[in-house]
Amino acid sequence: MTKITEDFDSICAISSPPGKGGVALIRISGLNSILIVDKIFSKSINESKGYQIFYGKIISQGEHIDDVLVTVFKNPQSYTGEDTVEINCHGSIFIQQKILTLLCENGARIAEPGEFSKRAFLNRKLDLSQTEAIADLINSKSSAAHSLAIKQLKGGVSSELKTLRSKLIEFASLIELELDFSEEDVEFADRNHLNQLIEALKLHVEKLKNSFQYGNAIKNGVSTVIAGRPNAGKSTLLNNMLNEHRAIVSPIAGTTRDTIEEVLTINGVDFRLIDTAGIRKTSDEIEKIGVEKTLEKINQSAIIIYIYDCIETNDEEVIKDLKKYNDNNIPYIVVANKIDLKKNIREININHFKTSFNNKESIGELKKLIFNLFEKQNINNNDIVISNARHYEALELAHNELIKVKKGLVENKSGDLIAMDIRQILFHIGTITGEISSDELLGNIFSKFCIGK
Amino acid sequence: MTKITEDFDSICAISSPPGKGGVALIRISGLNSILIVDKIFSKSINESKGYQIFYGKIISQGEHIDDVLVTVFKNPQSYTGEDTVEINCHGSIFIQQKILTLLCENGARIAEPGEFSKRAFLNRKLDLSQTEAIADLINSKSSAAHSLAIKQLKGGVSSELKTLRSKLIEFASLIELELDFSEEDVEFADRNHLNQLIEALKLHVEKLKNSFQYGNAIKNGVSTVIAGRPNAGKSTLLNNMLNEHRAIVSPIAGTTRDTIEEVLTINGVDFRLIDTAGIRKTSDEIEKIGVEKTLEKINQSAIIIYIYDCIETNDEEVIKDLKKYNDNNIPYIVVANKIDLKKNIREININHFKTSFNNKESIGELKKLIFNLFEKQNINNNDIVISNARHYEALELAHNELIKVKKGLVENKSGDLIAMDIRQILFHIGTITGEISSDELLGNIFSKFCIGK
Repeated sequence: MTKITEDFDSICAISSPPGKGGVALIRISGLNSILIVDKIFSKSINESKGYQIFYGKIISQGEHIDDVLVTVFKNPQSYTGEDTVEINCHGSIFIQQKILTLLCENGARIAEPGEFSKRAFLNRKLDLSQTEAIADLINSKSSAAHSLAIKQLKGGVSSELKTLRSKLIEFASLIELELDFSEEDVEFADRNHLNQLIEALKLHVEKLKNSFQYGNAIKNGVSTVIAGRPNAGKSTLLNNMLNEHRAIVSPIAGTTRDTIEEVLTINGVDFRLIDTAGIRKTSDEIEKIGVEKTLEKINQSAIIIYIYDCIETNDEEVIKDLKKYNDNNIPYIVVANKIDLKKNIREININHFKTSFNNKESIGELKKLIFNLFEKQNINNNDIVISNARHYEALELAHNELIKVKKGLVENKSGDLIAMDIRQILFHIGTITGEISSDELLGNIFSKFCIGK
Repeated sequence: MTKITEDFDSICAISSPPGKGGVALIRISGLNSILIVDKIFSKSINESKGYQIFYGKIISQGEHIDDVLVTVFKNPQSYTGEDTVEINCHGSIFIQQKILTLLCENGARIAEPGEFSKRAFLNRKLDLSQTEAIADLINSKSSAAHSLAIKQLKGGVSSELKTLRSKLIEFASLIELELDFSEEDVEFADRNHLNQLIEALKLHVEKLKNSFQYGNAIKNGVSTVIAGRPNAGKSTLLNNMLNEHRAIVSPIAGTTRDTIEEVLTINGVDFRLIDTAGIRKTSDEIEKIGVEKTLEKINQSAIIIYIYDCIETNDEEVIKDLKKYNDNNIPYIVVANKIDLKKNIREININHFKTSFNNKESIGELKKLIFNLFEKQNINNNDIVISNARHYEALELAHNELIKVKKGLVENKSGDLIAMDIRQILFHIGTITGEISSDELLGNIFSKFCIGK
């Protein structure tokens, strides 16, 4: 962990969303933040004990800039752990910029993205995975993604890892102690216990690693491919599912559509619906590329919805298609379409979901099926879920080292080699919670934050 | 004034700008606002004495929604004058919507635009012109517009009007008293004094009316037409002025460009620069329309910048042009362009501003000239300025009635007729401060506010 060797300078930013609104919130944090606000505020706040609100005027060279509410937070009872002042002003862009300028003229500087959270981390208010949870929380668009972020914010990911890590540190020390007595051939560290600990840690890391597929799907949406032969009804299915959806969530639809093209939220989980080109044998070179792309998308998806025209395609052909295109055993739903045109419905496979596009009610049923298929693969609701790609990578690296140590113990490797591998495990796990961090790592993480947080 | 006969229901809205940000602010106001927030908040706030902040969790059916700061304001010490709670939550759109939904499920309803300010008015925290100043403050884009709004917010417009109005009410009552004794032919209201009061009021109203041109220019930008013959250099002048400007105010330029096309801010005042088609005699019908439009724009503008090519056009032609096109005696600046090509600069009229487009420094000088020309027409800085079109209209109507009363006094009209006209003056002035208001008027005013204010 980066050591704090000095008090931080004062940083300021507009923390509320950019643009004009009824009110805006400007935040300033750092050693002199209270003094700086005091200079431009009509009331004295220097003596405040914190958690205190003041109603007054922002004044610059005798000019009345705005009537504001000023809230004082005293170190360590603030988000950053430093003295922090929040200015709740009228939301005109002019006023927001003016106050920010005044703060800078009086000794603050504009905060970098995520710099308040970085300070919360450096001042040990939050560990690294918790500060990352803050960013996820702000970016969460569905209730499932939101719940995941809240869990991570509570420190769920870190606590177990920390316990296991501290046990491992003990072992590492003991082994390193052996090295000092290497000529005497003693074993301070019980190899059997170490092996058990490594095994426990390996299982835990594997469980976390496995949860990433779920966590990532929750966070970024479950990639759901709609596949089938040409004219099976793929696009109509997509539109029908989305139309219903749009009507329900229209108040926030505009915001999600910026980043992901076609998202359907079922029970709070986002499914990214991907329409594909119809799959068929073709000699047309350009169409071939389209079909290949479809196959690629199918293989990358979390769920496949295979739809077919029950008049044109029979059960055997469906089975063949699925075998051919679903190499990776991705969970799927088979939808038999156009059943209103079918004379004998009993001919259709009993496991297929039957629909026709006159039958709007069936869309709701299909959504339930999709959601259940997703949930079925998933772990217990109380389990800890990894949703951060950086954490996943660190776990993967730690996992490789764990296997090395296990192998080393079997092969009765020398203490110094095992100690080296253990240090590597400690390092990788430490990067998740921030017990190990570098300026580069921190820079990378916090630059993705929004301004003012 | 609308009488308050009942306590108001609780309204809620997102008061920070729309969208995602570090934090967002949700406001709830009304009789049960504290009780409602108490239901979804982890700490008890029912006993709060106001001006108090609580850090805790928003919880819905056992589910942790967010960590928030809750601020309680008790009636009458709040913006609306009612019990008000502000929730400072993480700025994800999901969380903002979720908390709003929870508030509504627990008894609040979504506020209409401006409804918080409407309540501030109805609860006599602000008069009508002050609440309108709040809207102006939020919309202000330049420092001049901002200062104007702050002045109006302080109640400057209202206070003098209120004094004069209450004096007039006395006279109205006295005259109406005479009517009860009409057979006895007494005069309770001294006609001389009344005449003096009417004269004072008329002068005051005229002064305010005259300030509107200035106030409106400050608020909406000073319409500044660049006119001249074809190829005089109009568009280049415009671009040169804007280029410099853009570089300076780029942080907020994107926001102003949505509403007004080309704005140049000089010393905090917005000048709306309007480039026009070159003026010349033409037989081309389409060009004729363009020239007519230019003349129309010139006649509507506050300032004219007439530019000419000093090689092509001589002083007499310039004078002719100005006489021809500037019917309304609008203040103007004459710019002699391309002086770098002129052999004898002394031939150019000494009052003309001389420039060439290689001479970038002269642009700064020209800006000063423009600003001074605008300021010269303007009233004392401490004077009260009307910037609201609704106020201007009310003053116009009041003025007409004042003239009627004056005439009536000269003609020795009967008391009942004079009383009627006085009532009309009182009515029109009363609508400015809101002493007279109707649901329709209030609906009109507050619907223009932003959500959450």
